[in-house]
Amino acid sequence: MFDHPSQFLDALENLPVASAEFRDLALKRQAQLTKPAGALGRLEDIAIWLAGWQAREKPVVDRVTALLFAGNHGVVEEGVSPFPASVTAQMVENFKQGGAAINALTQQFGHELSVIPLDLERPTRNMTVDAAMSEDELLDVINIGAAAVNDCSADVIYFGEMGIGNTTTAAAIAAAVFGGEGASWAGPGTGLEKAGVVHKASVIDRALALHRSELSNPVEIMRRLGGRELAAIMGGVVAARLKRLPVILDGFVVTAAVAPLCVSADQRIKRDVLAHCIAGHCSAEPGHIRLLEELGLKPLLTLDMRLGEGTGAALAAELVRGAVSTHNQMATFAEAQISGGEV
Amino acid sequence: MFDHPSQFLDALENLPVASAEFRDLALKRQAQLTKPAGALGRLEDIAIWLAGWQAREKPVVDRVTALLFAGNHGVVEEGVSPFPASVTAQMVENFKQGGAAINALTQQFGHELSVIPLDLERPTRNMTVDAAMSEDELLDVINIGAAAVNDCSADVIYFGEMGIGNTTTAAAIAAAVFGGEGASWAGPGTGLEKAGVVHKASVIDRALALHRSELSNPVEIMRRLGGRELAAIMGGVVAARLKRLPVILDGFVVTAAVAPLCVSADQRIKRDVLAHCIAGHCSAEPGHIRLLEELGLKPLLTLDMRLGEGTGAALAAELVRGAVSTHNQMATFAEAQISGGEV
Repeated sequence: MFDHPSQFLDALENLPVASAEFRDLALKRQAQLTKPAGALGRLEDIAIWLAGWQAREKPVVDRVTALLFAGNHGVVEEGVSPFPASVTAQMVENFKQGGAAINALTQQFGHELSVIPLDLERPTRNMTVDAAMSEDELLDVINIGAAAVNDCSADVIYFGEMGIGNTTTAAAIAAAVFGGEGASWAGPGTGLEKAGVVHKASVIDRALALHRSELSNPVEIMRRLGGRELAAIMGGVVAARLKRLPVILDGFVVTAAVAPLCVSADQRIKRDVLAHCIAGHCSAEPGHIRLLEELGLKPLLTLDMRLGEGTGAALAAELVRGAVSTHNQMATFAEAQISGGEV
Repeated sequence: MFDHPSQFLDALENLPVASAEFRDLALKRQAQLTKPAGALGRLEDIAIWLAGWQAREKPVVDRVTALLFAGNHGVVEEGVSPFPASVTAQMVENFKQGGAAINALTQQFGHELSVIPLDLERPTRNMTVDAAMSEDELLDVINIGAAAVNDCSADVIYFGEMGIGNTTTAAAIAAAVFGGEGASWAGPGTGLEKAGVVHKASVIDRALALHRSELSNPVEIMRRLGGRELAAIMGGVVAARLKRLPVILDGFVVTAAVAPLCVSADQRIKRDVLAHCIAGHCSAEPGHIRLLEELGLKPLLTLDMRLGEGTGAALAAELVRGAVSTHNQMATFAEAQISGGEV
């Protein structure tokens, strides 16, 4: 799909937008439904947002698909996680056997789940000593993510991730995009104690120092500091935008994976690149709330979860379904012959 | 069910509690599931809470029932709502036709919905001039609420309400239980402008002044300041507790309806009375967040909704289902043969 990094960067400067016509139709419909104006709060916003991206007055959320990418990280050799890297492959097996949290949630809610391990036996390079990926390696996984989205006929999608060490990667990317030292983005991840978080922050600082002068565009940020699963998600979110497919973002790692997309060619932050995305859940991982604020995203849920896998987005998808059900099925005041308010 | 107010008050002093044994079993199970300890955050708390109340290591949320009570309020003659009282009956008809927000949500999520109008042609008395209900009138609706719960074989229930004027009633009850003037609890309800909210607060203050010396127990608070739908919910929540049935609370009005239950015989606030309840959603109605804080309840959702009908609880019920699905279906570390963390 993308043969060269410049092609990917060009796509970011020429993104399709939502349909203003259908957004307005949905807005008008909301005003006529049998409830006080605005009384469904964010459910109304969600329905109107979806109407614009799907170009339908009554949007559809029948098919919801989770794309879960897994990758391994060279930086794990710096001792940034309490779990060994082998757990990534073990958890992929667990996903395939149906034993993980995301399996339970997707089954409960009738979402489709695709699990896509990315070269687990070949971790990225340790970002404190080299770029994590070569240009070709990066393009490969960006294209895998984009292809997964292009092959998918869902009405709404979300991304999950699994990769021991990837909150370190995510924190480094967040620092590269929005500034700040490792300490302002590093958190306990799967369960580091305080000393472990301090060490993790210092590892991030070393990576940032090594690559600092080269972190001027989304491709280089992801290539130098990223991981395969994050790059696949970044590619997938762009592919979703190109087909105007709405995306529910999951936790800290998924949000960090898409943050580089907002770094524009003139070095400003362009939040509009993520206009087709909503934030499903704010993670307990401490960097996430700041990351969401920097991106102008207000999470639908804050449930102290910090698991990844797409679990936060899975729950949020049901709120989206609820929003659409009210928007589509409620009677208007005229249909129900109900007296309007005096104000 | 309750022949006399004293019987109702006695029940509150002798409430059954959750099973510590099954709560502990659920807690132990959570520690073995394939995720970092605590990584599912509030989902874990929900599953453990349900396990205790249902007395099952693996709780069940197959059947979810919404009980929606509607009532009319004499205080509407004071001009506290932009909508006329006739809208209550019109909305009940809308519920029966399937055109309201709660219909859309219960249908989307497969919840059962019962709509129970309470003497709509006979509003309660205007609380600024008299007690809203007689003792018999109050007991009647408490028992209707309790009977609806007793007849219900759901795994989890929630309550909805509809009643033009009932945010005024709810604010008066909140003030009676937790103190403060009308202004600290009154909000726009269905859409009052600022001047309307000021007037509403003054109406509440008049009611509080009239009844102040008699507001020493749950029955008198509800009888003097309440409404039929609120009393039915209060009765239903006690009946649920007596059968150890978990309850998801909805918005400001439902929460206010159960707040009097926490006023104990010795005039202290006993939050444990609501231990079988979780807060589904924090309403945009400004008094709700304070009310939840006073009751020690942390809402699962905050989506700027302010509609009532049970809509906030309906959405929260799907989070509860998600919580239980992870708790029940996830593999343990041993089952999945996954390496544990080092911390």
